[in-house]
Amino acid sequence: MSIVLHYFDVYGRGEIIRLILTHYGQVFTDHRVQYEEWPELCASNFSEFGQLPVLEIDGLRLVETKSITRYICQKFGSYPDNITDVYWVESLSDLRDDIINALADVVKKNDLNEIVRVYTEDIPWWLAKIEARLVRNQGGDGWFVGNSLTRADFEIFLLIWDGMLREGLKERFGGIIKKFPKLDAFVERFLENSPRVKSYLESRPVRSY
Amino acid sequence: MSIVLHYFDVYGRGEIIRLILTHYGQVFTDHRVQYEEWPELCASNFSEFGQLPVLEIDGLRLVETKSITRYICQKFGSYPDNITDVYWVESLSDLRDDIINALADVVKKNDLNEIVRVYTEDIPWWLAKIEARLVRNQGGDGWFVGNSLTRADFEIFLLIWDGMLREGLKERFGGIIKKFPKLDAFVERFLENSPRVKSYLESRPVRSY
Repeated sequence: MSIVLHYFDVYGRGEIIRLILTHYGQVFTDHRVQYEEWPELCASNFSEFGQLPVLEIDGLRLVETKSITRYICQKFGSYPDNITDVYWVESLSDLRDDIINALADVVKKNDLNEIVRVYTEDIPWWLAKIEARLVRNQGGDGWFVGNSLTRADFEIFLLIWDGMLREGLKERFGGIIKKFPKLDAFVERFLENSPRVKSYLESRPVRSY
Repeated sequence: MSIVLHYFDVYGRGEIIRLILTHYGQVFTDHRVQYEEWPELCASNFSEFGQLPVLEIDGLRLVETKSITRYICQKFGSYPDNITDVYWVESLSDLRDDIINALADVVKKNDLNEIVRVYTEDIPWWLAKIEARLVRNQGGDGWFVGNSLTRADFEIFLLIWDGMLREGLKERFGGIIKKFPKLDAFVERFLENSPRVKSYLESRPVRSY
């Protein structure tokens, strides 16, 4: 099976797909589209809805990040089989989207005071909500839903890692997660459980976003 | 079973939930929160992530629009049982979200020229993509995925209806859909197949968005 991810040469919306494929040990071609190539590629209708990421797999050319991540989790991993657990997984993924969109808006404005406010006020507010979700299941000492990793774990792990724990951000923002001990332990547990992701994060190309 | 929808007194993000519950003949309390009530309600942590809509059902208080609509379709209607059809449904729902977010950005700016440009350029571009999706299944003479209504049909029907066919918009923008005959026929087919929705749309409170 050939798997090709087409995305820009940044973390952005594509990194969650790289992370999940890596976790499940799937070899894929990581086609990093340079920004100057994009107008022509987009005009060629390469991407059904004119956006990246695009994932080619099973003879399909999938679009829409969340639909792609759901598909690869269902194909290579697992997905809940009852509607309540589906809800718990999906609503956390939706929350991550809300948070990323809010952060993108702030970064676009390039207002340092506003960025600091988001990190000192909004992000801790969201983390408290996310930690409460973790605690709902097995007292917060396991995964977000059920007994094994789901998309919710990937999404929240990456949100925290790329938002405050990766090199370049850790020194400044790494302290925030310490106020949420269950989430802090979750991040460690995730890395211990996913040596492939751990090794990927140590060796991936360094990008600023 | 008691079902209560809590949302603002507009169509907005809540209307898709009203429409799906109505289609499936579910009686629900349509709690319309006035804007002046919201700050206090929000501060009370009534909504897990500080947002509306909220749907109370099965002893749960569900949040995140797309997770709510998926849940009620799974509970009262249907959801595909193979990952490819899940993808076809979900990616159209994601596209509707992208379109609504883009429109909301434009409306916020209150720039009439930009609104006209969106209706004459962007919306026809999106409609062409959506019609191609419809044509993919049964030549465009049925539903978006498989042989029966799915969430994709609800989402796209409402996108078109509330975006250009409802009273107040139809005279100005209703002609756009005529350039997409398969979509035009889909809207008619949807209404014929859902007398409850048809009757609801004729009698619902009139709001400007």
